[in-house]
Amino acid sequence: MFAMLELLLIGIGTGNPDHLTREGERAIRAADLILIPRKGAEKSDLAGLREGIVAQVADTPPAIAHFDIPARRDDAGYLQGVEDWHDAIAERWQAAIAAHPGARHVALLIWGDPSLYDSSLRIAARLKPRPQVRVVPGITAVQALTAAHAIPVNDLGAPFVVTTGRRLRDGGWPEAADRVVVMLDGNCAFRDLEGTDLHIWWGAYVGMAEQILIAGRVSEVAERIVETRARARAEHGWIMDVYLLERRPG
Amino acid sequence: MFAMLELLLIGIGTGNPDHLTREGERAIRAADLILIPRKGAEKSDLAGLREGIVAQVADTPPAIAHFDIPARRDDAGYLQGVEDWHDAIAERWQAAIAAHPGARHVALLIWGDPSLYDSSLRIAARLKPRPQVRVVPGITAVQALTAAHAIPVNDLGAPFVVTTGRRLRDGGWPEAADRVVVMLDGNCAFRDLEGTDLHIWWGAYVGMAEQILIAGRVSEVAERIVETRARARAEHGWIMDVYLLERRPG
Repeated sequence: MFAMLELLLIGIGTGNPDHLTREGERAIRAADLILIPRKGAEKSDLAGLREGIVAQVADTPPAIAHFDIPARRDDAGYLQGVEDWHDAIAERWQAAIAAHPGARHVALLIWGDPSLYDSSLRIAARLKPRPQVRVVPGITAVQALTAAHAIPVNDLGAPFVVTTGRRLRDGGWPEAADRVVVMLDGNCAFRDLEGTDLHIWWGAYVGMAEQILIAGRVSEVAERIVETRARARAEHGWIMDVYLLERRPG
Repeated sequence: MFAMLELLLIGIGTGNPDHLTREGERAIRAADLILIPRKGAEKSDLAGLREGIVAQVADTPPAIAHFDIPARRDDAGYLQGVEDWHDAIAERWQAAIAAHPGARHVALLIWGDPSLYDSSLRIAARLKPRPQVRVVPGITAVQALTAAHAIPVNDLGAPFVVTTGRRLRDGGWPEAADRVVVMLDGNCAFRDLEGTDLHIWWGAYVGMAEQILIAGRVSEVAERIVETRARARAEHGWIMDVYLLERRPG
């Protein structure tokens, strides 16, 4: 008879340690094991961020287990590649937990918020036995972007769409709204949209000391964003960016 | 020659004081005047919440100026009614600030996040002279909802729409996505949608001790939500709720 394992998915915001909520601080202190990724999508600048947050928050630091993020293979198609990748990450989590049999409260510190374009809930669902999952919300890149530009994400009482660079490129402008938030876009899909009067609020490293912001008409600032993005990525070795687009019908 | 006034719009989350971020705590401590609404949409249960947060965070409490939220009139149409209402609230802010001529850092504690279906940025833009506005992001009702249900807001790599009850009722299902988040819905618009296989994750008072959650097929849980909502509203004297809908094509 085993007590059920609690898995805490703690949103930590977008790289600014001051994005952490009190609920997040408490959850970190309540954990007896913290799983921290060592490689993969998040690069060297970020490696120390999670350890730094844990050290700041917990007087008696909990055990930390590092795990390597496996490489993702897309040769079976995008969605199948993601499914296989989640399987492989779940195996790493499972092994790290098994190596700490006394741990009852295991935490992961999730970039942004665990609900938004994040895999941790889907990976957690693969664990056996299935843990009790608790989510602690965190500041998302969307909020860090709009806060930095000091703008609302929605027009007055109006809807907006949140999508990915891949979807925007493949599907064009989503007709449901005049504002679209785009995440996970490595290819600057805003360049390829039809429409003469699109406005963009773009940000990279939003909320961090390295934050870069550009806003204006797409026709006027697109090339500056592309160049700035490439330069910043080369300089830091990684980039995370997000943007809001607005269509302004004549 | 006057130094420019700094206006801090601080997202405090959805009624759980532990939603406050470290950045929010620091911003409250940096303020020398805090404007707190006394009446209007937010009812008696909530009156003390903001004062409580300020008292917890600031060893030397800043000055607090209460202001009354005027009634909104819709007799000139919905959008014009909102514009007039924002004008009237801006006058209250202006008067409160004028009564504290020494204040240089004026803060408002904003329910949720100042970017999401919130008026404070639009009201701030009406102040004269125009202040320097700084936004501190906070946990939104959308995140508190998905955290409570321990679900992602988006399907894998897929878009979603965020909209209002009014727009859902008037415009029907937005074709851009299979998931829709609905806010500001006093009329349970999910009852009126076509479609045999809609799923709903509903929550009221999300993140608070009073939290109520219901999830399931709309055809099976809609009446339970309507009844639960009416009962809770009568009991507390106010309600804030939010929900995520998913369309599952055959």
